Amino acid sequence: MFVLVNLKTYPCDPVAVAEAVRDVNDRTDARLAVAPQAAHIERVAETGAETWAQHVDPIDYGSNTGHTLAESVAEAGAEGTLLNHSERRLKLADVDGAVRAARRADLETIVCANNPAQIGAAAALGPDAVAVEPPELIGTGTPVSQADPDIVEDAVAAAERVDDDVSVLCGAGISTGEDVVSAGDLGAEGVLLASGVAKADDPQAALEDLVDPL
Amino acid sequence: MFVLVNLKTYPCDPVAVAEAVRDVNDRTDARLAVAPQAAHIERVAETGAETWAQHVDPIDYGSNTGHTLAESVAEAGAEGTLLNHSERRLKLADVDGAVRAARRADLETIVCANNPAQIGAAAALGPDAVAVEPPELIGTGTPVSQADPDIVEDAVAAAERVDDDVSVLCGAGISTGEDVVSAGDLGAEGVLLASGVAKADDPQAALEDLVDPL
Amino acid sequence: MFVLVNLKTYPCDPVAVAEAVRDVNDRTDARLAVAPQAAHIERVAETGAETWAQHVDPIDYGSNTGHTLAESVAEAGAEGTLLNHSERRLKLADVDGAVRAARRADLETIVCANNPAQIGAAAALGPDAVAVEPPELIGTGTPVSQADPDIVEDAVAAAERVDDDVSVLCGAGISTGEDVVSAGDLGAEGVLLASGVAKADDPQAALEDLVDPL
Amino acid sequence: MFVLVNLKTYPCDPVAVAEAVRDVNDRTDARLAVAPQAAHIERVAETGAETWAQHVDPIDYGSNTGHTLAESVAEAGAEGTLLNHSERRLKLADVDGAVRAARRADLETIVCANNPAQIGAAAALGPDAVAVEPPELIGTGTPVSQADPDIVEDAVAAAERVDDDVSVLCGAGISTGEDVVSAGDLGAEGVLLASGVAKADDPQAALEDLVDPL
Repeated sequence: MFVLVNLKTYPCDPVAVAEAVRDVNDRTDARLAVAPQAAHIERVAETGAETWAQHVDPIDYGSNTGHTLAESVAEAGAEGTLLNHSERRLKLADVDGAVRAARRADLETIVCANNPAQIGAAAALGPDAVAVEPPELIGTGTPVSQADPDIVEDAVAAAERVDDDVSVLCGAGISTGEDVVSAGDLGAEGVLLASGVAKADDPQAALEDLVDPL
Repeated sequence: MFVLVNLKTYPCDPVAVAEAVRDVNDRTDARLAVAPQAAHIERVAETGAETWAQHVDPIDYGSNTGHTLAESVAEAGAEGTLLNHSERRLKLADVDGAVRAARRADLETIVCANNPAQIGAAAALGPDAVAVEPPELIGTGTPVSQADPDIVEDAVAAAERVDDDVSVLCGAGISTGEDVVSAGDLGAEGVLLASGVAKADDPQAALEDLVDPL
Repeated sequence: MFVLVNLKTYPCDPVAVAEAVRDVNDRTDARLAVAPQAAHIERVAETGAETWAQHVDPIDYGSNTGHTLAESVAEAGAEGTLLNHSERRLKLADVDGAVRAARRADLETIVCANNPAQIGAAAALGPDAVAVEPPELIGTGTPVSQADPDIVEDAVAAAERVDDDVSVLCGAGISTGEDVVSAGDLGAEGVLLASGVAKADDPQAALEDLVDPL
Repeated sequence: MFVLVNLKTYPCDPVAVAEAVRDVNDRTDARLAVAPQAAHIERVAETGAETWAQHVDPIDYGSNTGHTLAESVAEAGAEGTLLNHSERRLKLADVDGAVRAARRADLETIVCANNPAQIGAAAALGPDAVAVEPPELIGTGTPVSQADPDIVEDAVAAAERVDDDVSVLCGAGISTGEDVVSAGDLGAEGVLLASGVAKADDPQAALEDLVDPL
């Protein structure tokens, strides 16, 4: 299982969470990574934790003031990037452009989407993975695998129909180790987490609880 | 073949073009339609020509000042709508929402996209048709079937792989009857046209030339 | 006082509301107008009611599929347009472009904004009027003049400081004739209304109640 | 004079340019600063050069995946931020929100705009400075002070009319020391530079030439 901790713009210490991600990663079979803000990528990557960007723009080197260049986040230490997160929706043509930009910079890609139809669309753009985030579950604490197990299975089926090399992650409603196991049982190869770890008093303990049942 | 004449915001007389579309449609096997601006849909539909919207928003009845509601364009006389045209790109989630809104209002849908990867993505959202518009050909007068025939065949293959009920149209670089025939030979079931007809001194003659070789 | 009824994308009969607007306008000193969806402008204008667009784009004649051209809504019968409504926010450069486009087409303009600082900014772009819509009051039924009278007075002062030819309207929290009077007492020269009239069983009675105390 | 070197997403070494900015700043009366990409702010600030962000979003701490938080760029070492650059246009309400976010994080602000009307609008939002960038001059090498001197004087007048505490910078068409002097003569208190320094073989020499006549 792949567990990606999205730090959003939370008021957490990105280095402390990254160290927890690194240490728990070393002790389990799960693969753990952390996605800090762009301005924090370099110091987070220096911890040795697998580091991801939260977004890159569909651009190349050039005149793009205020944009995020895939090559720059890669060179700062990122190994992958989220794209089209529900808090950073992109135009269809720009999801395509951003997947290409990330690939050019050797960044792994996870494209987020709301529902099975959009998961199929995202898979058609050739990312490494897609993540299904039903908007009605984001931030609720209700596990997707319990509230709406069909959506994960339907997302897995939709991605497979389009391109069976694309992994599916479960991107909302994961807060316990049981949720992670259920997501896996429904066909997900990973999960996106956010506040449950980033805002925990003890991020390391929170991560250990999550990966313990794997 | 389906021939859709997009009037954009050209300074043409939408009713005159619509009458030409209606008359040529009655005399040929091709299916012809016209897509005027929203404010012109009603008067264009009253000509009897098959009328399309250029865009609808991913919304329902409610508080959406300045947006285009699928039900309103349908009730004004539209039978279908373009979506995600290169001049009106939408977020991936909004292409999905707009396809659903159009379907709810019984509007036929054509989702435009730049390249075969995006065509696959668009097809995954379940529209009636997709249209491939290579950005480098838009407005050049160079027929796509001549400049880049692979892109049409690749688009047809990409759509088929995802959902073989989705038709593929050729959305750029069509100006002569030969171009229409070539597009059909490459697997397209229709074409999008714009200035060649909308800005012609005699739109009816222009349309007749286009459908004559079919 | 100017009273503009915004029909948004409500499921109302735009012609029935327009007839009420026309009839009450004829019987009072207030100036009444109605802003239907683009696809309804023509039939609404034919009632004889003063008709406004809800939005126009910062464009000229040309290749702008799916956009709203100022000249087209003017020719369909609109005499003015809302711009930058809270449900249709525009980039700063595009508010400027849309004000210029509207002026080119002889449309009167009202630029909406959230707070006194933005009202000053909007006034600097030279529209005919600005409308202050505190986001926390939109759709609440709480009159702005009661919940937050300072915001109207501050908006009037902000607009005056920048350009004292620009009128200020009150764009949220108006539902009774008393609210209209209070808005006027605070310096507003008009009000924007929406559901209170558009969704009323008897729009004419609703309008009469609103303008009665003027 | 304030000279801000915008590194955009150019393929330059941000640390090398920053060191040149720092060294030339120490030797002249001009104030020099550099605006790298977000992912480079920390290493650039460590050089001791005055460091600016290219953009911050109108957000606070919270759920804002893929956005740029003012506090995070400030903590990485930025002392100011560009906003609404022609390559990163914002909605009017978001320019307001981003100016407030920057102020909250103690970042100085420069809001860019196209023309005198927009400069007045930008000034009404209370930034520290505004920068006028006529779109037709961006990247041309033609100095604004020569091609269109009125636009700088009109921008200075427009800002002054709205708020005379707001400085005006000249944001396009500056490549020589003479251009900087002319901009100052027209009332500008600073300039934005980009490729002329960022892409120079010897950024230090390029900067020295620029500030030499001051």
